[in-house]
Amino acid sequence: MSRRGLMLVLSSPSGAGKTTIARELIRRDDDLTMSVSVTTRPKRPNEIDGRDYHFIDQPTFERRLAEDAFLEHATVFGNLYGTLRAPVEAALREGRDVLFDIDWQGAEQLARTAAADLVRVFILPPSTEELEVRLKSRAQDSDEIVAARMAKAADEMEHWDEYDYVVVNRAIEESVHRVQTILAAERLRRDRQIGLSDFVRKLRGA
Amino acid sequence: MSRRGLMLVLSSPSGAGKTTIARELIRRDDDLTMSVSVTTRPKRPNEIDGRDYHFIDQPTFERRLAEDAFLEHATVFGNLYGTLRAPVEAALREGRDVLFDIDWQGAEQLARTAAADLVRVFILPPSTEELEVRLKSRAQDSDEIVAARMAKAADEMEHWDEYDYVVVNRAIEESVHRVQTILAAERLRRDRQIGLSDFVRKLRGA
Repeated sequence: MSRRGLMLVLSSPSGAGKTTIARELIRRDDDLTMSVSVTTRPKRPNEIDGRDYHFIDQPTFERRLAEDAFLEHATVFGNLYGTLRAPVEAALREGRDVLFDIDWQGAEQLARTAAADLVRVFILPPSTEELEVRLKSRAQDSDEIVAARMAKAADEMEHWDEYDYVVVNRAIEESVHRVQTILAAERLRRDRQIGLSDFVRKLRGA
Repeated sequence: MSRRGLMLVLSSPSGAGKTTIARELIRRDDDLTMSVSVTTRPKRPNEIDGRDYHFIDQPTFERRLAEDAFLEHATVFGNLYGTLRAPVEAALREGRDVLFDIDWQGAEQLARTAAADLVRVFILPPSTEELEVRLKSRAQDSDEIVAARMAKAADEMEHWDEYDYVVVNRAIEESVHRVQTILAAERLRRDRQIGLSDFVRKLRGA
């Protein structure tokens, strides 16, 4: 039985471990690819076009936007970011799943444009203390910067209840396994299996 | 995090392997118990009250029915069968899952009375040939009886599209594992995790 791919959205406050989980999922699962966003932001030296982002200019972005080519988009610090519909739709048609590392605003837009294909997972840190440790360990930052990050994380966490599944990230391996389990189960959903209708018709001898 | 239990419904045409899968699931999973139906049918010698069915008389059944005590019920060959709401609700509250080996009519009633707690899995045989082999192997039956069973199976399969998940039972071990995966994922659904709201409130320092 072939199947239609799904869109796996992982969201979390920074410091909850989402990026590590996403990387592990991609590494372990050949049917899962990372969604690459389009942006008008200038490419940084360490970035590769097509891997980190598809870099395009603003007129091109706006033309595609007018054509309704985006599943979701946002403006951040004056730069445009978005997810093109065509490559995602192609992947889903070929039975490949697409992973989105996006925030709740992006997830909300995808829920409006692609609800049936969407599986939304929210990752939570195990405790405030652990979150603070992880946000501190990123760099040698001042208490002020860490406090600002904690406040931002608190804002992001407010949206946990817009997600289908919640995984509390106590240990990376356990969390990766949990998201893999969600992915495996969602692939067995009736409405993602292609050809079931014909298969049952044959079984019934009709 | 504690969680609310769920109601796992397994349905399939006879001969698809559902009973073997159900038995294996119960054996492997301490959090999963089989729902025991109530019936007015006389107890058979090999049956144990409370294990196979709860045997009660018809006036008692009808009184409980009038009290809206059943999640679902049906009349088969003049005998009443039903699932009492109270023991299922008690199990769910305690975070235990309940397995229902019922047909599409029972599943349909549960969808009306307990939709949020319900996870519906339909088991299909891998092929018409395999189904026929399994229906024949049950006893030394005439072609006529086997044909009648095939027709009944065809009728039952018509309802595959009322289920959340579909598992084609090619090999028992694979199918048991698939239903276990569905169960594990469904337990991670946001709305089954109790105390998440308080947990996030604490995380947010609010």
